[in-house]
Amino acid sequence: MAEEMKSKEKGPENVIFVGKKPNMSYVLAAVTQFTHGQKEIHIKARGQSISKAVDVAEIVRNKFVTDAKITKITTGTEQLKGSEGSSKEFVGVSTIEITMSK
Amino acid sequence: MAEEMKSKEKGPENVIFVGKKPNMSYVLAAVTQFTHGQKEIHIKARGQSISKAVDVAEIVRNKFVTDAKITKITTGTEQLKGSEGSSKEFVGVSTIEITMSK
Repeated sequence: MAEEMKSKEKGPENVIFVGKKPNMSYVLAAVTQFTHGQKEIHIKARGQSISKAVDVAEIVRNKFVTDAKITKITTGTEQLKGSEGSSKEFVGVSTIEITMSK
Repeated sequence: MAEEMKSKEKGPENVIFVGKKPNMSYVLAAVTQFTHGQKEIHIKARGQSISKAVDVAEIVRNKFVTDAKITKITTGTEQLKGSEGSSKEFVGVSTIEITMSK
């Protein structure tokens, strides 16, 4: 039902959040997902980690799971709460979600 | 002559190569394209600038050209020539191309 739809987005098992660890940590996580039978994974990141998320997806498909494809990439903006008194032009942080399927 | 050719900055008029300048330089370039009648622009970047390219696209569509949409995002890997003797696992550099249309 509705819960079934949400579990696709929320289910932590096929979502990899890319942060400050080395690239290969996330590559390993992604490869593990696929080798454990997962057909679709979501690589998410925000801010400066977006570049790393793209690196991870590219490494996975070029070097490790060559039958996996990037099927969708979406970007968005998250509004930040803090930073009071900030006069920055852009008070959001960009996000990316890369969907890979095999 | 040690003329610093920024070949990355060249190209068709509706292509914006995101590099080391401040975000707003590229945002301005993109907004200018749209206000001059361009219906589609391509924002390209590689390596660490990928995050900035996403920022630029998000700023453009959220703040300046709100009827523009991100219609396509593709990623790729460019092989590096240099880096002799490098034993890095990943000798490519990731690239991104964000297509925006209005």
